[in-house]
Amino acid sequence: MDDRKSILAEFIQKTWNDGDVSAVPDFLARRYTIHSDPGDPWEGQTLDIPGFQDRLVKSRAAAPDQRFECVDMIAEGDRIAMTWRWSGTHLGDLPGLPASGAPIRMTGITVYYFQGNRLCGHWQNADRLSVYQQILAAGQGA
Amino acid sequence: MDDRKSILAEFIQKTWNDGDVSAVPDFLARRYTIHSDPGDPWEGQTLDIPGFQDRLVKSRAAAPDQRFECVDMIAEGDRIAMTWRWSGTHLGDLPGLPASGAPIRMTGITVYYFQGNRLCGHWQNADRLSVYQQILAAGQGA
Repeated sequence: MDDRKSILAEFIQKTWNDGDVSAVPDFLARRYTIHSDPGDPWEGQTLDIPGFQDRLVKSRAAAPDQRFECVDMIAEGDRIAMTWRWSGTHLGDLPGLPASGAPIRMTGITVYYFQGNRLCGHWQNADRLSVYQQILAAGQGA
Repeated sequence: MDDRKSILAEFIQKTWNDGDVSAVPDFLARRYTIHSDPGDPWEGQTLDIPGFQDRLVKSRAAAPDQRFECVDMIAEGDRIAMTWRWSGTHLGDLPGLPASGAPIRMTGITVYYFQGNRLCGHWQNADRLSVYQQILAAGQGA
C-alpha cells in the first residue's frame, strides 16, 4: 500500500511536475483509461504509452511551470485517491482562452487505478470553473 | 471500514437525496469542517448541526429533486473517498443563474472525514464548470 503511494508520488513529480516524458513507461500499464475527467480532451479514452506521452506534452503546454502538491492519499484495494493543490502560469493557449500570463491555482481529487504497481487509469475532478474565472479576471485587469 | 461505508451511503440517501433535515444529527459529529469545496458558499467554515442543516436546505433548493449516485468508495484510516454522479433539475436560483428548469448532470469526488462513526468534514471537487455550461446552454435554447 505504502509502496504504491511512493510510486504515485514519484509519478506525479517526474511526469506532471518535471515534464519528463521518458519516465512514463516506468509507471504506466500498457493501457491507461481516463474513466471520468470533465474538461480533459482525452476523457473516456484508453491510451497506450505513446498516447499518454502525447497527452502529457499537450496538457502541460498550457502551464509549463505547473506544480501538483499532493495533500493526502487514501488507499484501498487497487485504488488510491489523492487530494491535491495545483499552481502554474497560463503561458499556452486553452480552448477559448489564449495564453494570458495569469498565475492560476486550483484544487482537485484524482482516483488512480493500479494493475500491480503500475497505473492503469484515473477518475478526476478539478476546479476548472475557478481556472476560467481567474484567467478571465486577469484579462479584464481585475 | 464497511460499517462506515454503509453509514456514508445512508447519510447521502437520507440527507442529500431525500432532504430529510431531521436525520442530520444521526450522522454528524458536533463540528463539521468544509476543508475545501470550491464554489460552495460554506467553504472553509466549521458548522454545528443547525449550521449544517441550514446548508443542506439552502443547497438543495437549487435542485430539490437532486440525486447523488455513489460510484465507488475508497476507505483508509478515518477517511472515505467517494466518486459520484449527480443529477437534478435547476428549479431554484444560483448566484448569477436564475432558475431555468434545465436538467443538469455532473460528476464529483468527495473525501469524507470521520470521528468514530460520525462525519466531521469533507474535501470536495465537483464539475461545476459543466453545470454552468449546461444552464447557460439551456437559456440560449441550445
